[in-house]
Amino acid sequence: MTANSYYGQEGHGPYELMDIGTLELEEGGSISNCQLAVATHGTLNAEKDNAILVPTWYSGTSKIIEDVYIGSGRALDPDKYFIVVVNQIGDGLSTSPHNSDGASFPKVRIGDDVRAQHKLLTETFGITSLALVVGGSMGAQQTYEWAVRYPDMVKRAAPIAGTAKNTEHDFIYTETLIEAIITDPKFNNGDYADSAEVAAGLRRHAKLWTVMGWSTEFFRQNRHQALGFESMQAFVDEFMTGYFAPMDPNDLLCMAWKWQRGDVSRHTDGDLAAALGRITAKTFVMPISHDMFFPPTDCEVEQQLIPNSELKIINSIDGHLALFGTDPDCQAQIDTALMELLAS
Amino acid sequence: MTANSYYGQEGHGPYELMDIGTLELEEGGSISNCQLAVATHGTLNAEKDNAILVPTWYSGTSKIIEDVYIGSGRALDPDKYFIVVVNQIGDGLSTSPHNSDGASFPKVRIGDDVRAQHKLLTETFGITSLALVVGGSMGAQQTYEWAVRYPDMVKRAAPIAGTAKNTEHDFIYTETLIEAIITDPKFNNGDYADSAEVAAGLRRHAKLWTVMGWSTEFFRQNRHQALGFESMQAFVDEFMTGYFAPMDPNDLLCMAWKWQRGDVSRHTDGDLAAALGRITAKTFVMPISHDMFFPPTDCEVEQQLIPNSELKIINSIDGHLALFGTDPDCQAQIDTALMELLAS
Repeated sequence: MTANSYYGQEGHGPYELMDIGTLELEEGGSISNCQLAVATHGTLNAEKDNAILVPTWYSGTSKIIEDVYIGSGRALDPDKYFIVVVNQIGDGLSTSPHNSDGASFPKVRIGDDVRAQHKLLTETFGITSLALVVGGSMGAQQTYEWAVRYPDMVKRAAPIAGTAKNTEHDFIYTETLIEAIITDPKFNNGDYADSAEVAAGLRRHAKLWTVMGWSTEFFRQNRHQALGFESMQAFVDEFMTGYFAPMDPNDLLCMAWKWQRGDVSRHTDGDLAAALGRITAKTFVMPISHDMFFPPTDCEVEQQLIPNSELKIINSIDGHLALFGTDPDCQAQIDTALMELLAS
Repeated sequence: MTANSYYGQEGHGPYELMDIGTLELEEGGSISNCQLAVATHGTLNAEKDNAILVPTWYSGTSKIIEDVYIGSGRALDPDKYFIVVVNQIGDGLSTSPHNSDGASFPKVRIGDDVRAQHKLLTETFGITSLALVVGGSMGAQQTYEWAVRYPDMVKRAAPIAGTAKNTEHDFIYTETLIEAIITDPKFNNGDYADSAEVAAGLRRHAKLWTVMGWSTEFFRQNRHQALGFESMQAFVDEFMTGYFAPMDPNDLLCMAWKWQRGDVSRHTDGDLAAALGRITAKTFVMPISHDMFFPPTDCEVEQQLIPNSELKIINSIDGHLALFGTDPDCQAQIDTALMELLAS
């Protein structure tokens, strides 16, 4: 346990902590009294067929999903749907290193999250059909895992800015994120009293996110200034470093390890075509045009392996982190695509 | 002085060390007995109008230029031209931290290199006109600097995979390269006995190059395997780490600092249009399609400010490091463009 006031109802609520019992892990070991932080919006109808699941991305929580994607008149409309946003394990709200075993927290995989969410939805909410699973980045990894693992339950799927099988390139990039943190002597193999001690490592981690998270075009067109930062340095120091600085290093590392290994072909002995061929959900594969992690070309080859799917490229020079909601036009495109998908 | 057997005639020759005397530096201070390592190919004609200058890129030396770009029947044909490849200051062959003042080596700018090269060409070779200046990456930075600083001397210019004014995005990326090295405790503020001591920092530096130096498409299409490496890990460990490991950290940092600050608009009070408007050389701006540092969009906006210029995009999924000569088709495209330029 490491005290960290960043994670909590004040900054990220309201959410409810739901105990799903013991979660056996794919890598071995288990999490006892595994708690998922869950934020719901809207009402589950009598037929229990209006549920939408939204898993979260690296470093994000249910709060940014609520702020940026959910609202009356939006695609994710709580007036129509029962929207369940589940914080991924390790994100700081759900069971995570910092609120449990710290550096000795077990390795968790995307599949573990999805089984945990399945248990939650079926046992706690009695949901056996999902109108939509939608998520960005690591949320897209979980979306793909859902569609492959529980094809009968997922009617529609919208993986945004993410892949079904993480690329080798992305694995190495994520490795640089990990190394930025663990090479900070103050990280001390995960045994620190406060994330502030690891400030230097977190700052380098934030800088690497700056390089790959947006796009060259984003900076050339001075989008960082349009977002209110006087200079590139201010953008790095205030926005990017400010964003990551309060987070728990072990929590980030838990998610990074999981992110690196997202791969639905684990279900089919490494055969990605076979895994994606299992998907029965109507699927919109939604890469962001300027994404430097998950470029449209990487997403398109996966989309072509999914039977009932369409490629919907979201245009934004904000790149991967357009997911943050920095580009209203990007939001509008995502809404339009999700509305089309939900209407199908 | 730090002994380093990597830099020398055996691996990088033949080249000649030419002393240009004292070089006053833009940032203050000077290099006395500044030595430029120079490799020449072909013969200067009587009119002294067949000279081509090729400055070098980050971490590269004259050797890779010779191996990959120069040859009979090629654009850079020693049967027709007198080709002068000048190693940039700090590259390990010319005066550099490791062969002089180590960590206290002064800050050098692109403009210092270009003035040093100008002195060499005019005083040592009696050259007052250059048929072509061509270079990749930091070699492109020097090419732009030449065309802006000495417009009357440069008849043709071909900046490949580089910019006239370094972008803010690229500055931050280069900062991550620098930090990978200087945060290694063994770097010891530049006071080490052997580059092998800084192996961890150099390895992280190599990994960052892996992420941005090629392209997502390069790895997706398994180009790294086509180049003879069994896996991504082997590519990182053997090729990328193997490439950078023997280099001197202070030398790399000298070049990185210079790279970050390449900017021809220093001649015109920050007015890039005015600086590029000075260019009289017929100029082919040659970005590489999949370059993650210097994408075509960043290069095109500069090209449009150069009076007598054309944009010649070189298509290669090998990205920036196609400069290494890994993609024969890319080489052919560069040759074709340079031949067209030389014929104009």
